[in-house]
Amino acid sequence: MDIALLGGTGDIGEGLALRWANDSPHDVIVGSRDPDRAETKAEEYVTELDSRGREVTIEGLGNVAAAERADVIIAAVPAYHLTDTVESIADVLEPDDVLVSPAVGMKRDEDGFHYNRPGVGSVTKLAANAAPEAVEVVGAFHNLAAGRLANLDAELDWDTVVVGDDRDAKDTVMELAEAIEGLRALDGGPLANAAEVEAVTPLLINVARHNEKMHDLGVQFR
Amino acid sequence: MDIALLGGTGDIGEGLALRWANDSPHDVIVGSRDPDRAETKAEEYVTELDSRGREVTIEGLGNVAAAERADVIIAAVPAYHLTDTVESIADVLEPDDVLVSPAVGMKRDEDGFHYNRPGVGSVTKLAANAAPEAVEVVGAFHNLAAGRLANLDAELDWDTVVVGDDRDAKDTVMELAEAIEGLRALDGGPLANAAEVEAVTPLLINVARHNEKMHDLGVQFR
Repeated sequence: MDIALLGGTGDIGEGLALRWANDSPHDVIVGSRDPDRAETKAEEYVTELDSRGREVTIEGLGNVAAAERADVIIAAVPAYHLTDTVESIADVLEPDDVLVSPAVGMKRDEDGFHYNRPGVGSVTKLAANAAPEAVEVVGAFHNLAAGRLANLDAELDWDTVVVGDDRDAKDTVMELAEAIEGLRALDGGPLANAAEVEAVTPLLINVARHNEKMHDLGVQFR
Repeated sequence: MDIALLGGTGDIGEGLALRWANDSPHDVIVGSRDPDRAETKAEEYVTELDSRGREVTIEGLGNVAAAERADVIIAAVPAYHLTDTVESIADVLEPDDVLVSPAVGMKRDEDGFHYNRPGVGSVTKLAANAAPEAVEVVGAFHNLAAGRLANLDAELDWDTVVVGDDRDAKDTVMELAEAIEGLRALDGGPLANAAEVEAVTPLLINVARHNEKMHDLGVQFR
């Protein structure tokens, strides 16, 4: 399967790109608004994987070209860029494509990090509203700590809760999630349940800030 | 330490009463609006613990008498009874007492369970607003599945995130939490961070509903 990581040059996008390239047979395409930057980062990822004896091809392309090539498109961009990013690729999305939203909106005050719930209900719903009607939108990968995800020496032991209204699209994303070693995909129900998943991310940051020896946290349901 | 469980006759209160009586040296007092019911349930708990070779004394009292006797008072009542319950015991709370709020407000629709955030910011904050100013309020035990908690045959393997503005009060509650076998207390920072903790509970229910062989879920940060 071809996976495009829009915003694949940083944060969660970098970690997902490295993990899929390392752990799975899927083809990873790094997308960025700046195609040169996408290409540079793609080369970096290839070099890192090569140093681990893993020969892979990773392409770096502009977001539109990346989305056009892929079957599954991960909008790994900050919440405030999400609508723009999805609108910018809307014309090249096909009805069979699956668009995945991992973004979370947060605000920070003197007490800690807080979930900044958009008026439409969730950030995942923002992505769904910006996407063409024929394209299925799935929420996933909201609660993964970018630093640990991008460090291939770090073992993962995390759950990711996947939400969406289309069974097939959700199954596709859950399979992709479980192709990453140490990641378990759990079904969170329809897309309308996204807010409670997104709200876990500021909690993970608050817990990491207030407890010794805890950082880059994820979550497990048990 | 004397722990009063207001609403200790059902749901999360029953589980906490049984666990503390079984696992810790602390004295448990079951509180209820109906003292007779509190006494009946306290006797039930004593009988259950006795059947496990654990001889304990558990008193059952009206909420006010229970709160008056205890050092730590757990308001284990539904969110919509929380303000009333705290107001009803306010006169007997002393400055050294610690009031603990485990309640979560949820609403359910056709998609699943959702966090119903009160206008003041969180349910824990509702408790803080209803308590006398000199009494420290701590949020804890929000994300424990009542069924598994009350089943002493079930091993726990959960975290509970504790929030509050007073270090000593929070430490007291974290120690009480860790006196329950299989429960790890994590510091979530100030009370203003309570909403993100409370919001995990509907997520746990949604995940349990949509995944086979998962029920009575708790959470672990890792």
